[in-house]
Amino acid sequence: VQNDQTQYRIRFEPDGVTTTSENGSNLMQVAIASGVHINASCGGTGTCGTCNVLIREGKVDSVRTSKISLSEYENGVRQSCQSRVRSDLIVEIPPESRLEKAVLARETAKNVADGGQIQVVAKEWPFEPVVSKIYLELEPPTTNDNTSDSERLIRALREQNCLGPIDLSYTLLSTLASTLRFSGWQVTATVLTVDSHSRLINLEKGDTRTRNFALAFDIGTTAVRGQLLDLGRGRVTANAIDYNNQISYGADVITRMVQCQKPGGLGQLQKAVIATINHLIQEMLKQTSTDIRDISFIMVAANTVMVHFLLELDPQYLRLSPYVPTVSQPPLVRARDLGITAAAHTHVWILPSVASYVGSDIVAGIVGTGIYQRESVTLYMDIGTNGEIVAGNREWMVASAASAGPTFEGGGIKHGMLATSGAIEEFDLDSLTLEPSITTIGNQPIKGICGSGLINMAAAMLKAGLISQNGKFNTERISNRLRPGEDGWEYVLAYGSESQTGRDIVFTEIDLDNLIRSKAAMYAGCQTLLQGIGGNFNSVDQLVIAGTFGSRLNIENAIAIGLLPDLERKRFIFVGNGSLLGARLCSFSTFLLKDAGHVADLITNIELSENADFMENYLAAMFLPHTDSRLFPSVTQGMRL
Amino acid sequence: VQNDQTQYRIRFEPDGVTTTSENGSNLMQVAIASGVHINASCGGTGTCGTCNVLIREGKVDSVRTSKISLSEYENGVRQSCQSRVRSDLIVEIPPESRLEKAVLARETAKNVADGGQIQVVAKEWPFEPVVSKIYLELEPPTTNDNTSDSERLIRALREQNCLGPIDLSYTLLSTLASTLRFSGWQVTATVLTVDSHSRLINLEKGDTRTRNFALAFDIGTTAVRGQLLDLGRGRVTANAIDYNNQISYGADVITRMVQCQKPGGLGQLQKAVIATINHLIQEMLKQTSTDIRDISFIMVAANTVMVHFLLELDPQYLRLSPYVPTVSQPPLVRARDLGITAAAHTHVWILPSVASYVGSDIVAGIVGTGIYQRESVTLYMDIGTNGEIVAGNREWMVASAASAGPTFEGGGIKHGMLATSGAIEEFDLDSLTLEPSITTIGNQPIKGICGSGLINMAAAMLKAGLISQNGKFNTERISNRLRPGEDGWEYVLAYGSESQTGRDIVFTEIDLDNLIRSKAAMYAGCQTLLQGIGGNFNSVDQLVIAGTFGSRLNIENAIAIGLLPDLERKRFIFVGNGSLLGARLCSFSTFLLKDAGHVADLITNIELSENADFMENYLAAMFLPHTDSRLFPSVTQGMRL
Repeated sequence: VQNDQTQYRIRFEPDGVTTTSENGSNLMQVAIASGVHINASCGGTGTCGTCNVLIREGKVDSVRTSKISLSEYENGVRQSCQSRVRSDLIVEIPPESRLEKAVLARETAKNVADGGQIQVVAKEWPFEPVVSKIYLELEPPTTNDNTSDSERLIRALREQNCLGPIDLSYTLLSTLASTLRFSGWQVTATVLTVDSHSRLINLEKGDTRTRNFALAFDIGTTAVRGQLLDLGRGRVTANAIDYNNQISYGADVITRMVQCQKPGGLGQLQKAVIATINHLIQEMLKQTSTDIRDISFIMVAANTVMVHFLLELDPQYLRLSPYVPTVSQPPLVRARDLGITAAAHTHVWILPSVASYVGSDIVAGIVGTGIYQRESVTLYMDIGTNGEIVAGNREWMVASAASAGPTFEGGGIKHGMLATSGAIEEFDLDSLTLEPSITTIGNQPIKGICGSGLINMAAAMLKAGLISQNGKFNTERISNRLRPGEDGWEYVLAYGSESQTGRDIVFTEIDLDNLIRSKAAMYAGCQTLLQGIGGNFNSVDQLVIAGTFGSRLNIENAIAIGLLPDLERKRFIFVGNGSLLGARLCSFSTFLLKDAGHVADLITNIELSENADFMENYLAAMFLPHTDSRLFPSVTQGMRL
Repeated sequence: VQNDQTQYRIRFEPDGVTTTSENGSNLMQVAIASGVHINASCGGTGTCGTCNVLIREGKVDSVRTSKISLSEYENGVRQSCQSRVRSDLIVEIPPESRLEKAVLARETAKNVADGGQIQVVAKEWPFEPVVSKIYLELEPPTTNDNTSDSERLIRALREQNCLGPIDLSYTLLSTLASTLRFSGWQVTATVLTVDSHSRLINLEKGDTRTRNFALAFDIGTTAVRGQLLDLGRGRVTANAIDYNNQISYGADVITRMVQCQKPGGLGQLQKAVIATINHLIQEMLKQTSTDIRDISFIMVAANTVMVHFLLELDPQYLRLSPYVPTVSQPPLVRARDLGITAAAHTHVWILPSVASYVGSDIVAGIVGTGIYQRESVTLYMDIGTNGEIVAGNREWMVASAASAGPTFEGGGIKHGMLATSGAIEEFDLDSLTLEPSITTIGNQPIKGICGSGLINMAAAMLKAGLISQNGKFNTERISNRLRPGEDGWEYVLAYGSESQTGRDIVFTEIDLDNLIRSKAAMYAGCQTLLQGIGGNFNSVDQLVIAGTFGSRLNIENAIAIGLLPDLERKRFIFVGNGSLLGARLCSFSTFLLKDAGHVADLITNIELSENADFMENYLAAMFLPHTDSRLFPSVTQGMRL
């Protein structure tokens, strides 16, 4: 008898993960629960068609939608989010539905290798980690000095070097008496100083000063990056990166915020990112044989939406005008209260944010790069969905989110994808034959187009005259690869026979249109921000490009399409992940951590969404590179040649 | 089939409480679990014989010990702590094994009626409760002012009247956004200020300023007293009192501390006192129809052992020389973390203590009575098992515990008992016939002797010449009531035919010896403390007697036996429960609360147990009233007459 209590065995390939599931379960939820990543840009509503899987053995209930062709359906392709388990299954996740970890791993390896690659870093900060371990040899109590254990301990801390009030953690009390006595009154106190308070959070037997670790995390919408920090030596001892598990609930923050409005949705998203964090912690501990009890602190930088998810706070007011976060400086919280696998004494501090779309990741970047310490004016850009921009110096700072959309992460692009294995990254075009010359990430067969590839492609096509400055294919150019498709004219990047997915990979006029909108938003955002303070791009001494995307960017091509301003090339600086840099440095120095609070206060947030200047600038930028060619002298000159 | 899973019905009389129990359960544990009090001075080890019950129907497994006579055993009397349930039962708890609540209730009624009976109270304190409710009408966010909800709230608090940093409670965040919006941005913030920090602990819709309540508790070894405080109006709105449920684990703190060394023992004791607290809270809420969510704060004063039990801290180092507490100023803790039934935002603050036997109850008394504010020197005595003594003024203060033993609470006395129904309180003796004239508490048939009765009895017998100054019965006096017993000579206070227990109630020479030891310890403690600061009883301007016991005390009789010094009578002041007074006043004023910290620091603890002067003074005081008759001029004069 098969009823709803029946358990089925589900194997996911090529991961090789086997799990069990009840009759009628949603196949995508089963995959999420077993730790198997399936892309689901729309958050499982059935509208995006990115979560297709191949049912190799067994039976699911699943209606065919327009996202699957009849022949695909007959061959066993199903939308996993629309499928219910009805038997034991072997499920194959095809390349286009899969997230490849190989590329993230490469990014990690590179970061570790070129530790010194960052060109701007905060200066003049005393090394004084947020967590200090203080070794104490206490006088044992006598009849004449029988003050309480807690008083004795606090007295000894004061005699050493701790000034100001010290809060004693309640959880410490239960083992305080025995720790002091079984250690012969020789103990190491762990003192955490954030938010202008010092808290005695742990007490260990003997001298454990050499084992003082913290974690720094950048929690991004797409990926979560962690570093294990040796606070005693001021070094990074491990790096780890993984996709944010929340991807299974939607590729972008808007989809995930909508997901939160469903019953239990917020809790699921919170647990998803915690699972990613826990996984990364395990990985870093394993890499370095570090004991989890030696980690007393976790510093987090993240965009404001991710912070809300992490704290399980309803994000609905972030999403609606006037875009108000619940909290900008969250209080100190125990790691375990969030579900993080850590010692009882491990605390989490989240860096302060400025606004709904100018988060603590940006504040961390400004602090980490020391922009707030300088006289000269810096423009800081994090090119991505939110498109955060900050301009300023030590005295003033303005910020905005340009809402560039998901284009640079492959969203809204017919064959767009994240910058992972098989994504087109390098692109050139023979100006006569219009045949492409393509390099993919990992040198794999072509699977799709990532953000940086998109920019390179548009620049090359513009240069070759295949597309016009107003973003249309020049259909007079003769090429077998140029053809009318369901989304208007399209250029075939790879035919099914050579692609990884077995289908033609194309670049459409709609894709180009989306790219132009995104690059126009970024450019116009910067322009509006600078105008707001009575300046323009010439007022900018340095242009700092943050984010992983930035490090893949070809500057000449980005200028050629008008994403970046046409400034002297030496003014451009790449900092890689500014958010993680800031989280790390703030862990190493309570001074920088205090500065983070000042920076968050210093930054004035400018909402662009209802700004008339922005709309004007945006429309003027809807051209390649720009309607005002004087703004792009080097590009204009190149095109004339 | 009867196996260990069988459930039996147990009815306890005269309480009329019915419960179920598994086969083989310990009968005393069943009673505790169902909220029925049975005395158990020894903590359930079978040695004290105070937990006897009568099995009216049904069967228990229970070996007869020396604590039960053969005829009692045949009539169904059993030691409840040694009995295992083997069938449905009807169990009668006889008067001597029962705790009577009637007298505690009378104490409450009296306290409420004579609200102004206290003769010394702290002066010059601004009314500024530890919890303040602040009504705020916030500006709703706009595109130009879309700072986070938390920032907006903190900004508004600062604009009103809150200075200094305000910590935001993590638990507040989850409902912050909706509370602000569904209240139309009109909210009441609850700010708790202890330990020099202000914490925003709650946020309510609308104006709730009139609903600002706190609880004050004095947690004593024997009884727990609570008051419901209206912080808005500065008034006590309800009183409640009950026995500390821990009594079932031993009448005195030493027995309970031993109990803690058993597996799970500490947890049981913690839960026992929490059950009492929860019961009292319910009672006070019911009395006043107060909503539990309107109580934001609980102030606790208690002796150091009770504080350790409350926080579930192993008390073993309190018990052993050099008597070191784990904590003297416990951190702020959530009520729910301790198991207290309260709102999520309700916090508990425990007043600071000085040493293992000079607890926060004494600090509270010193603060509440304002002794620390005066130039004149006060001697503060809490007559009881610990026998805490403090001497000093605004500039200096010394304290000790005289370890008087349980005599004043009826311990170590053959027919001793707490000051409850049926206890002999007033006592006089016809000097010719040596027949007694007795008044019991509640005018009930005689059940035993309480501490104040014991003092009155000894004073009367001394005056009548029935006992000599060295504590022996004058066996030359002819009386039918004077007879040799198993503990030496004894005086029959009531014969079995007239007593509540059906047995003869006697006062033995060993009882007298214990009383002399206890009173000598108190007197010698005070004497040693005053000598330590180069003074004597004449240096004392006021003698403040705290504690419920104090309020029952006949001063003339206490002086006559040498428990209290022979000072001018007008220098004696009774303050009742100084501990609860202090807890209440500290709730009404953050200034007094800060003073409590200063007082705890100001007080120097002197250990008497290894003090040579104390031993000498103690031996000299082992006489009625004292070996040095010059110290008791009025008594000596009276005896001459």
